[in-house]
Amino acid sequence: MNSSFFGDMLQTIADRGRALLAGRNRRVSGEARTATLIERCEDLLSGRGEASGTALAREILIDFQRLKTGERVGFFEALSNVFGPDREALRAACEDYAREPTEAAASAVHEAAEPRRQELVRRLNLAPGATAALVAMREQLLDSLPLRPDLAGVDYDFVHLLSSWFNRGFLVLRRIDWSSPANVLEKIIRYEAVHEISDWDDLRARIDSPDRRCYAFFHPAMTDEPLIFVEVALTREIPDAIAPILSRERTLLDPREATTATFYSISNTQRGLTGVTFGSFLIKQVVEEISRELPNLSTFVTLSPVPGFMRWLAAERATDSPAIEPGDREALAHLDSAGWQNDPRKVEELRAVLGSLAAYYFLSARTKHDRPVDPVARFHLGNGARLERIDLMADLSEKAITQSAGTMVNYQYVLADIEKNHEAYAEAGEVVASNGVKRMLRPEKARALAAQP
Amino acid sequence: MNSSFFGDMLQTIADRGRALLAGRNRRVSGEARTATLIERCEDLLSGRGEASGTALAREILIDFQRLKTGERVGFFEALSNVFGPDREALRAACEDYAREPTEAAASAVHEAAEPRRQELVRRLNLAPGATAALVAMREQLLDSLPLRPDLAGVDYDFVHLLSSWFNRGFLVLRRIDWSSPANVLEKIIRYEAVHEISDWDDLRARIDSPDRRCYAFFHPAMTDEPLIFVEVALTREIPDAIAPILSRERTLLDPREATTATFYSISNTQRGLTGVTFGSFLIKQVVEEISRELPNLSTFVTLSPVPGFMRWLAAERATDSPAIEPGDREALAHLDSAGWQNDPRKVEELRAVLGSLAAYYFLSARTKHDRPVDPVARFHLGNGARLERIDLMADLSEKAITQSAGTMVNYQYVLADIEKNHEAYAEAGEVVASNGVKRMLRPEKARALAAQP
Amino acid sequence: MNSSFFGDMLQTIADRGRALLAGRNRRVSGEARTATLIERCEDLLSGRGEASGTALAREILIDFQRLKTGERVGFFEALSNVFGPDREALRAACEDYAREPTEAAASAVHEAAEPRRQELVRRLNLAPGATAALVAMREQLLDSLPLRPDLAGVDYDFVHLLSSWFNRGFLVLRRIDWSSPANVLEKIIRYEAVHEISDWDDLRARIDSPDRRCYAFFHPAMTDEPLIFVEVALTREIPDAIAPILSRERTLLDPREATTATFYSISNTQRGLTGVTFGSFLIKQVVEEISRELPNLSTFVTLSPVPGFMRWLAAERATDSPAIEPGDREALAHLDSAGWQNDPRKVEELRAVLGSLAAYYFLSARTKHDRPVDPVARFHLGNGARLERIDLMADLSEKAITQSAGTMVNYQYVLADIEKNHEAYAEAGEVVASNGVKRMLRPEKARALAAQP
Amino acid sequence: MNSSFFGDMLQTIADRGRALLAGRNRRVSGEARTATLIERCEDLLSGRGEASGTALAREILIDFQRLKTGERVGFFEALSNVFGPDREALRAACEDYAREPTEAAASAVHEAAEPRRQELVRRLNLAPGATAALVAMREQLLDSLPLRPDLAGVDYDFVHLLSSWFNRGFLVLRRIDWSSPANVLEKIIRYEAVHEISDWDDLRARIDSPDRRCYAFFHPAMTDEPLIFVEVALTREIPDAIAPILSRERTLLDPREATTATFYSISNTQRGLTGVTFGSFLIKQVVEEISRELPNLSTFVTLSPVPGFMRWLAAERATDSPAIEPGDREALAHLDSAGWQNDPRKVEELRAVLGSLAAYYFLSARTKHDRPVDPVARFHLGNGARLERIDLMADLSEKAITQSAGTMVNYQYVLADIEKNHEAYAEAGEVVASNGVKRMLRPEKARALAAQP
Repeated sequence: MNSSFFGDMLQTIADRGRALLAGRNRRVSGEARTATLIERCEDLLSGRGEASGTALAREILIDFQRLKTGERVGFFEALSNVFGPDREALRAACEDYAREPTEAAASAVHEAAEPRRQELVRRLNLAPGATAALVAMREQLLDSLPLRPDLAGVDYDFVHLLSSWFNRGFLVLRRIDWSSPANVLEKIIRYEAVHEISDWDDLRARIDSPDRRCYAFFHPAMTDEPLIFVEVALTREIPDAIAPILSRERTLLDPREATTATFYSISNTQRGLTGVTFGSFLIKQVVEEISRELPNLSTFVTLSPVPGFMRWLAAERATDSPAIEPGDREALAHLDSAGWQNDPRKVEELRAVLGSLAAYYFLSARTKHDRPVDPVARFHLGNGARLERIDLMADLSEKAITQSAGTMVNYQYVLADIEKNHEAYAEAGEVVASNGVKRMLRPEKARALAAQP
Repeated sequence: MNSSFFGDMLQTIADRGRALLAGRNRRVSGEARTATLIERCEDLLSGRGEASGTALAREILIDFQRLKTGERVGFFEALSNVFGPDREALRAACEDYAREPTEAAASAVHEAAEPRRQELVRRLNLAPGATAALVAMREQLLDSLPLRPDLAGVDYDFVHLLSSWFNRGFLVLRRIDWSSPANVLEKIIRYEAVHEISDWDDLRARIDSPDRRCYAFFHPAMTDEPLIFVEVALTREIPDAIAPILSRERTLLDPREATTATFYSISNTQRGLTGVTFGSFLIKQVVEEISRELPNLSTFVTLSPVPGFMRWLAAERATDSPAIEPGDREALAHLDSAGWQNDPRKVEELRAVLGSLAAYYFLSARTKHDRPVDPVARFHLGNGARLERIDLMADLSEKAITQSAGTMVNYQYVLADIEKNHEAYAEAGEVVASNGVKRMLRPEKARALAAQP
Repeated sequence: MNSSFFGDMLQTIADRGRALLAGRNRRVSGEARTATLIERCEDLLSGRGEASGTALAREILIDFQRLKTGERVGFFEALSNVFGPDREALRAACEDYAREPTEAAASAVHEAAEPRRQELVRRLNLAPGATAALVAMREQLLDSLPLRPDLAGVDYDFVHLLSSWFNRGFLVLRRIDWSSPANVLEKIIRYEAVHEISDWDDLRARIDSPDRRCYAFFHPAMTDEPLIFVEVALTREIPDAIAPILSRERTLLDPREATTATFYSISNTQRGLTGVTFGSFLIKQVVEEISRELPNLSTFVTLSPVPGFMRWLAAERATDSPAIEPGDREALAHLDSAGWQNDPRKVEELRAVLGSLAAYYFLSARTKHDRPVDPVARFHLGNGARLERIDLMADLSEKAITQSAGTMVNYQYVLADIEKNHEAYAEAGEVVASNGVKRMLRPEKARALAAQP
Repeated sequence: MNSSFFGDMLQTIADRGRALLAGRNRRVSGEARTATLIERCEDLLSGRGEASGTALAREILIDFQRLKTGERVGFFEALSNVFGPDREALRAACEDYAREPTEAAASAVHEAAEPRRQELVRRLNLAPGATAALVAMREQLLDSLPLRPDLAGVDYDFVHLLSSWFNRGFLVLRRIDWSSPANVLEKIIRYEAVHEISDWDDLRARIDSPDRRCYAFFHPAMTDEPLIFVEVALTREIPDAIAPILSRERTLLDPREATTATFYSISNTQRGLTGVTFGSFLIKQVVEEISRELPNLSTFVTLSPVPGFMRWLAAERATDSPAIEPGDREALAHLDSAGWQNDPRKVEELRAVLGSLAAYYFLSARTKHDRPVDPVARFHLGNGARLERIDLMADLSEKAITQSAGTMVNYQYVLADIEKNHEAYAEAGEVVASNGVKRMLRPEKARALAAQP
């Protein structure tokens, strides 16, 4: 993205801004750059910004891109320290409010508490291509956060502004297919996070068959950047394994004969938008879109990974966990021998055990916040889906064997139940699951679960 | 806009939302409506909003449109009282900050001080067509404000959000011409605020000649609503009257022979966006755009009204103002006789006097904030233009005779001077004017002006 | 169209062709112009055309536009005489074929018989905007034909080429609505030939209601010129009068509740394309399009004028026609008194008579080619529609009273019967009509009709 | 293309045509298919075609695609025999013309001589996607021609119609870059005929650099099929070798600093359009387009292969040709040892000889039609370019070594000279060449050349 943004920038400067930028000596010493940048940010917030804001914002964003890592952190520090709220004004507003807590006083506090960097970022967005540049800037901020937790306030403000700008109401759903622009498609290849796309032929197999669909959200200010995309397979049954879906040799299905739409991959593309969520909107809107096109579709499910299963199981095996029956441990030991998935006997023995453990993992295991352990489960259950089926040995890729011993699951979206399911989950942490999944639980565990308040 | 929004809404509901909306009795009594609406707003802010936010937001916006005036004010009241900040949390955050004014404490204050209605409005924006509906809602809020100053806090939040959403970086400049969609053109007819467009033929004369241009800013979420537009005449000289520009009988000019682009009308279309400014960006971007297309253009000026001149002059005449020389009053008395503009002798006598008074009005008269009295002057000078020329008897329409005795002015935009001019104005209130304008000032006034600090 | 074409031309020349056209003295005497033009046409057909054909074609088309009427006829004469086939070659080819009628000899005859003007027109089409210019040229040729029947061969070649270029496979169906470009809409206003559109408000009432549709065919080389358009009303019954459809006060119908699509106006826009037919394709494709959008539609009819009825009736009345019963003549005499349509008694008496006469006009009256007398009937019956209903007093406009005593008819398109109906009509001249229409025929006429072979 | 066409077809049938096609038994025996197809073609030409032509045309085209090779030839045979002109009518028309050779009689001959297959192909074009299908059909006809010269008349008619439909006036120039649709880009990869594109990365290097351009002509009825495309390198000098242009490691040039546009590859994509030429238009229009964008460009050249050089030279060497000096033969013998291009000494010796021989090949060698031997030379010289420079050892690829011993040439397009050059070439076969090229000729050859009439 940087490169494309940079291309745009250079082009744009060339076209429009030359005169404005001329005469500035750009070969300043490394140390001086951050200082200069901060000065210009002050200019942008001042009157100069009103007169020639666009050119100034452009300059700042380009110069920021040229900073080295350390200099960038220096710039973020300045955002934190120099572009915070006016402390004196804030203290006064707080005191006023303490004295008389009126609407107006609350408003005054809110205004005084707004860090100056918010307005700064709004003005930086004046430049052409700036939105993408600011998302990239936030990505670099995220890189710094682990070592510099003191920059959390800056990040908070980025998330605040980006959430407002990337409001669902401004996003545009577009179908991605073989007639989409190459610069969009290459990002699908690059960003696919669930089931890797190896090259253009692989991509084509995914999006250019009559029984496959791909949709993405776009923001009008970043028209060649898909923000999140979902890949869909049209099938006649709920699939229980990923290989037949990804296979290039499969028999094509006439889409009008499909009954089931399977969402088998959802990927966010912009790390700089972490914390700004649109996944749930995407699934629901694609369900609407695809139903209109193909009225015969009646079932909408995912085929999802279970990324936390093995990590959780390892922890349970390491302790005297009630989740694991004494008799299970022998079979589970197979997991420790590399290549077990190629040994039919081991697979057979594990199947019996893994099914009930996976059911336990989803239905009974809990985080300290009393939520399911699996992050993907939290996402779909939070969206109002229900856990429809557990598919053992469904993904034999290296990654899936390691993460989940090959286990995948289907979450089902039933429009009429979404709200109810969501509320059950949101209010009581309840995992809405099919009877099939519940029956996989060993009887005594099922009883224990039923006995929970 | 409402009607088009409504059309969209009805269509969309029909298509998508039927099931979700079914079963609700929509024939509630008038009094109950506001209450129900507020309830749904609470739903939208709660978990329900996360599961089926789009449908809920749509419902609320449609129901709001159906409210009668009184009910609407009731709804705004609720936004003010019920959807303000959490007062308890805010008090606590303020106390924390008072105790220890850290970055984090300031952040906490800011978060606690944010009224819940901001998040509510963000979520309302989920619905298709919502952005236009929210702009319309704010227009109705503006209608209530004069009688209900207590709703100012609600308005503040609308402006805050709309400013963020309508950031210049998201606006798209589009040329308006005879191949533009009719639903856009009808808005140009409707919203032209400076020199009325009487019908489609009149519109065509304005936008479909080779020596005329019209540009507008659009927001991606309101694609058939121009937000602000400017009309441009390409000429060979700086024009000193409006009639030749508007005349349908004028000789057409080959645009490649034009040297001057005259901005003779700028109109905002969305009253609901009052306070969100993009006029200055529009002019500058059109200058860039049009220069690229027609490299021969070297002069960029406005032909602008002087809306405050007669009001100011009446006030001066009513007092013993130093602005008016004793000898002027006889000529000025002509202004009180209707139709003076048709009497060549009166016009002649007034010309001598009005010129120097207009120069005084621009260069010496000041508001209590030490700024020029004329609002249009404040706009262009604040943008970095300079006052190039005063044109007497330049607009003989009823409106202009009343407002300015027919006076118009040219503000000139010289790209290289914009920043400097802006700073002179912003910092010292200085009115950058041509020597020609300065010379219109009577010598003693000019001396007085020069002597000012 | 000329003006827009001219605009394009001038623009294009300005942009591209200046150098190529420079140095030519364009102020030649009127008489010399045609000669010069013909010379350039020879150039275009020669080598020069291959090297710089585009510029040359442009020149010729522009110069043609500047010719005066007489000069144009001179140019068409040249097309006829100078740009015919090579007579010597044709004679030789004919002799060869007479000697030995092989495939190859036939091919050689065809090649030799092709007038040089066909290749000339193909090369003229190289210029930007040329297709529209050539359609306009043919329009002017049509104007000359009545006085100059010797130009028929030139017209034959124009039709041949235009039919090939405006092949249905190249036309694009587009919906026309209030978001269509103004330069397209103004042509709808201008070209509506059946029920006049008085102004933009009138247009809007026709195309911007949820229960109205308008579709047009466009050619990719003339993107702002609708070639033919049809106006459709969505209703719940087959309409029997035009006024309720055109009324601006009617109650709007939710399109999803409509069962019937009524084609109430079809207009060709390009007189220069006379003889190139696409009306039948338009109706059928709109039926498909609109059915997809609104699956509830089950009935597709026209509400059509009967332009030949009164002319035919006058002729019958002037003779001792068997079509007219002796008792009818008294009532028919009312038609001769202006304003009869406002006298309820006269209307009443005429109704009884006109119905059976109209049925006779459609079912029994015949041209010398044994086809129905009414041209609109020939069009729709030839397309495979059937005559569904005769509507008396259905159009009270001046024009309709004069043409048809206010009579209109509904032709119905039933997809499953189109082919069968067409064949019945094409092979046997059979008028497929509903029983209702047949019953309007007086018994003895009906018997006579049934007795026909 | 077939596959995409088929996709469209299947889709379209599904959408629209189902009912019409139902009930037909499609499992007919192989032998019966051609017969059935011909029957339907007769239907299409008859009344049935007028009523339901679109569906019928669609059927025929799909069924044709399903024919096996032999059956296809059978179909072409039928086009030749069954759908020729009406022989009786043609004989009569010829006789009439022989008797009295009037305009009208010539017209009648032309009409009678038109084979019925022309109208058939025009009607086949009614179906959606038909234009591409007909181009594909003609490609298959071309495959049959070598064995079946009797089908030449059918081919003649295809060329006639396709030339009319693909008239330059209907083609659209579009820039191809990294934001072009993938289904267009894959065709660039597939069809590049001069310098192979190995994969998507290679493609990107060619079209997504600021100093590279690619343009193609499209037809509105085949929007995802480039018909012909040209690749352009922006440089500061006329390049004398291809490797630096294709290198992915080259330094990028700011396009605004380029002075020269080099057309280094032109490829036709549609074999089915062989004989319909647009290459010359493409180059000229790209020159215009690119000049507008980059006014600094002053030189427009090609870097072209010399495909016939070695074949010609081999023939000369085999005889006692005056082109070859006795002393040359030793050096020329190097060409017979594989890998000579890697031996600096051999290269050195060859250089001295190949240069003058290449000059002879271009300037003196002639076909029996008195034209240059090299087909690429004939193309560019016929377009009005001049032979600017001979570049030895300019392309070291296997193919180029074989075809031309690595020789390439630059043809230069000077807008002001195009017409003059074209005429010199067209009328006298003159090869317009730079002095540099002429000087490469050995003195005595040059004298001989100069002495030619």
